[in-house]
Amino acid sequence: MTTFAQALLTPRTIALVGASGDVKKNTARPLRFMRKHGYDGHIYPINPARDEILGEKAWPSLAELPEPIDHVFVMIPGAGVEAILPDCARAGAKVVTIYSDGFGEAGPEGQARQQALVAKAKELGLRVLGPNSIGLADLHSGSILSVNAAYEASTLLPGEVSMVSQSGSMMGSLLSRAAARGFGFAKSVSVGNESDISVGEVVDALVDDAQTQVILLFLETLRAAPVLSRALQRARAAGKPVIAYKLGRSELGDALAQSHTGAMAGNDKAVDAFLRAHGVLRVHQLETLFEMVPLARRYGTARPAQRRAAPRVAVITTTGGGAATVVDNLGLRGLTAVAPPDDFIDLMASRGLKLRQTPVIDLTLAATPPQYKDLLEHLLRADWCDAVLSVAGSSAQFHPEYVVKPLLESEKSASKPLAIFLAPEAPESLQLLQQAGIAAFRTPEACADALSVFFDTSGGAMPAPVTTREWSAEFPTQGLLNEYEASQVFETLGVPVAPRALLTPGRTTHDLAYPLVAKVCSRDIPHKTEANAVRIGIKEQGGLSQALEELPANARAYKADAHIDGVLVQAMQDRLAEFILGYRDDPLVGPTVLFGAGGITAELTPDFALRLAPVSEDEAREMIAEVRHTQLITGWRGLPRGDIDALARAIAAFSQLAGLRGAHVTEAEINPLFVQTQGVVAVDGLIRLD
Amino acid sequence: MTTFAQALLTPRTIALVGASGDVKKNTARPLRFMRKHGYDGHIYPINPARDEILGEKAWPSLAELPEPIDHVFVMIPGAGVEAILPDCARAGAKVVTIYSDGFGEAGPEGQARQQALVAKAKELGLRVLGPNSIGLADLHSGSILSVNAAYEASTLLPGEVSMVSQSGSMMGSLLSRAAARGFGFAKSVSVGNESDISVGEVVDALVDDAQTQVILLFLETLRAAPVLSRALQRARAAGKPVIAYKLGRSELGDALAQSHTGAMAGNDKAVDAFLRAHGVLRVHQLETLFEMVPLARRYGTARPAQRRAAPRVAVITTTGGGAATVVDNLGLRGLTAVAPPDDFIDLMASRGLKLRQTPVIDLTLAATPPQYKDLLEHLLRADWCDAVLSVAGSSAQFHPEYVVKPLLESEKSASKPLAIFLAPEAPESLQLLQQAGIAAFRTPEACADALSVFFDTSGGAMPAPVTTREWSAEFPTQGLLNEYEASQVFETLGVPVAPRALLTPGRTTHDLAYPLVAKVCSRDIPHKTEANAVRIGIKEQGGLSQALEELPANARAYKADAHIDGVLVQAMQDRLAEFILGYRDDPLVGPTVLFGAGGITAELTPDFALRLAPVSEDEAREMIAEVRHTQLITGWRGLPRGDIDALARAIAAFSQLAGLRGAHVTEAEINPLFVQTQGVVAVDGLIRLD
Repeated sequence: MTTFAQALLTPRTIALVGASGDVKKNTARPLRFMRKHGYDGHIYPINPARDEILGEKAWPSLAELPEPIDHVFVMIPGAGVEAILPDCARAGAKVVTIYSDGFGEAGPEGQARQQALVAKAKELGLRVLGPNSIGLADLHSGSILSVNAAYEASTLLPGEVSMVSQSGSMMGSLLSRAAARGFGFAKSVSVGNESDISVGEVVDALVDDAQTQVILLFLETLRAAPVLSRALQRARAAGKPVIAYKLGRSELGDALAQSHTGAMAGNDKAVDAFLRAHGVLRVHQLETLFEMVPLARRYGTARPAQRRAAPRVAVITTTGGGAATVVDNLGLRGLTAVAPPDDFIDLMASRGLKLRQTPVIDLTLAATPPQYKDLLEHLLRADWCDAVLSVAGSSAQFHPEYVVKPLLESEKSASKPLAIFLAPEAPESLQLLQQAGIAAFRTPEACADALSVFFDTSGGAMPAPVTTREWSAEFPTQGLLNEYEASQVFETLGVPVAPRALLTPGRTTHDLAYPLVAKVCSRDIPHKTEANAVRIGIKEQGGLSQALEELPANARAYKADAHIDGVLVQAMQDRLAEFILGYRDDPLVGPTVLFGAGGITAELTPDFALRLAPVSEDEAREMIAEVRHTQLITGWRGLPRGDIDALARAIAAFSQLAGLRGAHVTEAEINPLFVQTQGVVAVDGLIRLD
Repeated sequence: MTTFAQALLTPRTIALVGASGDVKKNTARPLRFMRKHGYDGHIYPINPARDEILGEKAWPSLAELPEPIDHVFVMIPGAGVEAILPDCARAGAKVVTIYSDGFGEAGPEGQARQQALVAKAKELGLRVLGPNSIGLADLHSGSILSVNAAYEASTLLPGEVSMVSQSGSMMGSLLSRAAARGFGFAKSVSVGNESDISVGEVVDALVDDAQTQVILLFLETLRAAPVLSRALQRARAAGKPVIAYKLGRSELGDALAQSHTGAMAGNDKAVDAFLRAHGVLRVHQLETLFEMVPLARRYGTARPAQRRAAPRVAVITTTGGGAATVVDNLGLRGLTAVAPPDDFIDLMASRGLKLRQTPVIDLTLAATPPQYKDLLEHLLRADWCDAVLSVAGSSAQFHPEYVVKPLLESEKSASKPLAIFLAPEAPESLQLLQQAGIAAFRTPEACADALSVFFDTSGGAMPAPVTTREWSAEFPTQGLLNEYEASQVFETLGVPVAPRALLTPGRTTHDLAYPLVAKVCSRDIPHKTEANAVRIGIKEQGGLSQALEELPANARAYKADAHIDGVLVQAMQDRLAEFILGYRDDPLVGPTVLFGAGGITAELTPDFALRLAPVSEDEAREMIAEVRHTQLITGWRGLPRGDIDALARAIAAFSQLAGLRGAHVTEAEINPLFVQTQGVVAVDGLIRLD
């Protein structure tokens, strides 16, 4: 009995609907590719207009086939696809991959067509990959259900890397680049519009694929996050590292990915938090996606659970300038090159190699190959560095015995990451290193990217356990809460809120200490300052009485129909610095929590940390460390220190908005949150419900 | 008569001092390389220990040579180099290139040795390249005075690009990478320690070299800036673009370059300002250095004089995902992808090509090659875009006729930049494009880097004319000025300064309007707040009298021997926002002016613009636009607008510190400078003299 995963990735019986006999056409490719690369399963080309295709028998329809089909590949015009689904089901197909376009990516009409297609497939028990998928391939068996020109290559290199791509054309491009460098592939899958089978489900199947050891993702957006989340957790448990290149780091790129794929508006930062939480290595340079594979493969499970402040890289080279091209980029990413300590220099001297105490160990070809190998092995075992970078100069091109051979021969059982950058054009040496499973990089930028990503992605803290709390019956369950209600919710979660009272014509007494702030409390007036509905520095009863009269009047003048719940009076608070807490149930990845700098100038230069919610106090501390503005409360320039413990507790408590049941919080904000010498305090905030 | 430039770059008679007959040694390489690559001048290997070297006659010393020598290449141990200089001079040499190391790069002893060497050479009328230079080569004539392994290549590709490098080993690496891509070279020069001949002098010689059309620089630091400045101005006048890769973008990289080269502590931002001022295209990715050549070559003189806010790139592609990898990076660098306007869509429709109004024109292979060519030519002439980017998919690998051929055949007389990114591994197509002089990029990052650099480097505003002013005799000519003196200097230059008076026991009257600020005025107490020697918000005479007594007392308690010049009293000033002006006579590049955000939080996130001083008001406006913080005074979020005209005038005036004669200002600062609705005003500042 063929499983879904087998039918998807390693089908043994295949039907090609719309296969052409004209070799110039894309639709002739799958059959040609499979014959070229020796697929030994059964292939049935379907074409009612022809008896034979490329010398093989062509079948008029799926209904005529002599045996059950695992996987149907559909290449007919989009308008006719839905109509053949019943035939697919009758032919026993488990998976239908649809190359045809004109669906979700093509405006409202296409979207309707796609919905109908998926509904029909579901009714028939069929799973759909695509539509608008360039197809998928198993490079071990040669089953190539794809029109991708990349498979024109005379030979395919089977290997242990699998790729899942939201861009069909980039999948071929990446395969060709990786293949030229000697990377072999297991499976490659273009998911097209992800109308049914999503990236997550493909990853899930790849976790169970014996030939796949590393999974690469080329992403334009994120769909079906819960499915992907489960698959990524299984991949991690199975020790299969996942490396991702995702478009949308710039607003321009993000907008483009949406228009290009018809995807939902995405927040790249939220997707980034999702990927980090799952331990996915998100690279920033395109070729790092595959160049990083050996690093991820050898050391994937050895990555530190927490990022060091500045990971220390030991650098050995025969080209000072070449090493500097990588080190300069490492510096931009917060890593540091570390000089060997005295005892290490003594140790190597006792073994006949003289080193200087510089951040780059420049051997200038003074070391013999055995010495180079000896040094490398000692560095990989040393406790004063977190990674080793070797940069080879011209010798890599003409004399691989100097540097490349010692690298190949050295004992690399140590779990410390080792990366090699070859400064000259040296494709053969790159291949040799790759074949030996050593991470070798063609550009200094990709090399620095890989090392940085290795350390940047912390062990991947999944969201902290949710503390489920029932929504209080006294509050509305939709729309905007007023500020007083929001403050009560925050307090329930454990966030300290400024002492306050809601005064109404019927209740004008309070036990707050002056000076006070008074604000109109109304869900209809979120911008209180604009409405002249705030008064600060109220020093005594008289001022308060005046405010209680004037502020509601101002508010009504600003918005006549505003429903005013009263005047919120707060004790004024000291502060060392002000911050923002934000919560959003992100449409792509679900609940997220943001901690960032407060005040108007902070808006000019984004300075925040974002995580999937809820977060633990430990993760909140990581967020605090990520925000530059927190230097103002951590001893910078002799400034007084703020209460970081209380801040971490407040962030963690606030993030438990994700655990509220009985109402759906879509957005919440505390702005500002004051950090004090002792404690923190929320001064203003809002909560929006679905 | 051989000129210096000829002797340096295209010598006809060469002596190789220390040439080895052992082919395994580096020192055997120059002779072997020149024979291999067909040099037809005269070569004299000098080696007193041998009669022949690699089958050729060896000469015992320079004194025995039968004809005058243009250029001596020295490969003997460092300690013996100085001693052979007299022989070099007697042999008629104009230039001596020294491969030997153990000089300036090797600690105090080596530095002394280098000084002695240069002094001796000067005395003898010899010019020195190096020491610690891997040598130089003329790829047209095959004169290779270099031990660089890069010349092992079986054939060298002569071309029109020349490279000057401060790193010997990287020169070879870059040559090999460029050669593999079909880039031919004219000259390549490693300057070593630049003890005598600097990068600038080599560039100057290359400006006059008929074979050189584009000059590449690989820089670790900057030496002899005035020489380089003149050479770069000549290069620009000659229409020869200069492209630079400079290390030190990160602090780590900057520190490394210094330790590695023994260079002076450098400020990368100042060097960056120097390069920009001279129209040098500074790239950020290593391979952009040569990949950008065709872009610089074809459009070098057509670059816009001023950077557009967001240069508009028209993008055509057959791979949406591939185009997005470039566009995402363009977005990070402030460029934008622009959709075709209606009339352009109509125009192309009338020519048979249907386009959609999207920021990336995705042709999905629908266009025929003639249509592609037609579209490209129309884009290159269109006025709604500033550059054209073409991204080719798998067709570039297997079917160059689809996209690469139309690119090759299209009319590119337009001055608009055209860049091509090939998504798949497609070395042959890259070569075809390169041979046709089209800028084709191997990675999306380098492609975006090149386009961004093309627009980022504005025409290159050289410093504005210096207005020479004599230093007032009433002020000291060295050390720190007191705040009152500094304020007088700033006012002389035309910077508005807050109304003020210097009160002393003998002069206690003033005509300033209250409220006032009072500050102890002493060059011995630059940190007045720390000394409790500032009082703000003085409302009337009584408060002032008290301040005049207490502040000097506080200052003396803080620093008993401080010389106190009086109490500086200022009228308190309003502000919309505060900024900093800085001036520094940079040790590498000379006078520079900085404009940046003020206040303590701005120090957390650098937000400033830096230029060579002085600057014109126009360039000051560019600086203002570069600083994010100026959004606070340019209408952001409805905030009141500041007086940008006055701010630009103040920056330009302040930068004229560079024109003061009679004293040498090494550093100056106005902090803060308040920007107001009408005007700006300097509130505090200092000037330091040499």
